Amino acid sequence: MEQRISLITLGVADVSRARRFYEQLGWRGQEVEETVFFQAGAVALILWARNKLADDAGIEDGSADGFGGVTLAHNVRSHDEVDGLLATAASAGAEITQSARQTFYGGYAGYFRDPDGHVWEIAYNPGFPLGPDGSITIPDFPAS
Amino acid sequence: MEQRISLITLGVADVSRARRFYEQLGWRGQEVEETVFFQAGAVALILWARNKLADDAGIEDGSADGFGGVTLAHNVRSHDEVDGLLATAASAGAEITQSARQTFYGGYAGYFRDPDGHVWEIAYNPGFPLGPDGSITIPDFPAS
Repeated sequence: MEQRISLITLGVADVSRARRFYEQLGWRGQEVEETVFFQAGAVALILWARNKLADDAGIEDGSADGFGGVTLAHNVRSHDEVDGLLATAASAGAEITQSARQTFYGGYAGYFRDPDGHVWEIAYNPGFPLGPDGSITIPDFPAS
Repeated sequence: MEQRISLITLGVADVSRARRFYEQLGWRGQEVEETVFFQAGAVALILWARNKLADDAGIEDGSADGFGGVTLAHNVRSHDEVDGLLATAASAGAEITQSARQTFYGGYAGYFRDPDGHVWEIAYNPGFPLGPDGSITIPDFPAS
């Protein structure tokens, strides 16, 4: 298995509502057959009805919770960008679950939940450099 | 907000068990402070204790379910790769929740759950080309 991810699909209760939320964050996508596709760098983020997603995956959806132990992070290049993006998300209707604060690794980050409960971190982490194309590189950690 | 994702963090019950599972799929990462970082193309996949992740995000974790309405997809270049990867995942202890089958979009795909319930699709989708570096491109859909 090559070490990569192609698609991240967020199951949502209302595709139009979810699309409007991400558009208010500035994202632009395409909708086809009640599915929204956002090109997101080298991967794609997809919005699809949660019941269809569970059915496609062959699983019982035992919860209406959006957490499920998964978070997505959008890393940025400065403290100010963290504050700005969390404010934008709040304006778009997100719940800020963790206000931006200094992190133990010398960064600055906060979290929000989208209207379906999916959890995003907005983070400035000077130890994880971002390329000009937005790709992130995990550095070689010193052996502990 | 730039249209990209930096990190995908999977909350897990046992970091060592989860790491072993992904290593059996062929992934190689670094562990620091009970956190495993896998470089995955332009993004990173992280394994972290689920309770720490929920606490960091400022949320109550109301479920032990791994779904939460989120799936990850790993797209490949052939039917055979789908079958091969699902077999590898099953050997590593994954539950196959949906056997590989033809899809409505002319592809071939199946799903598995990792030991913490996180759901992965392994998909061959001839309509979504993969670059030499594994990046995926969403095509321009015809206006419907």
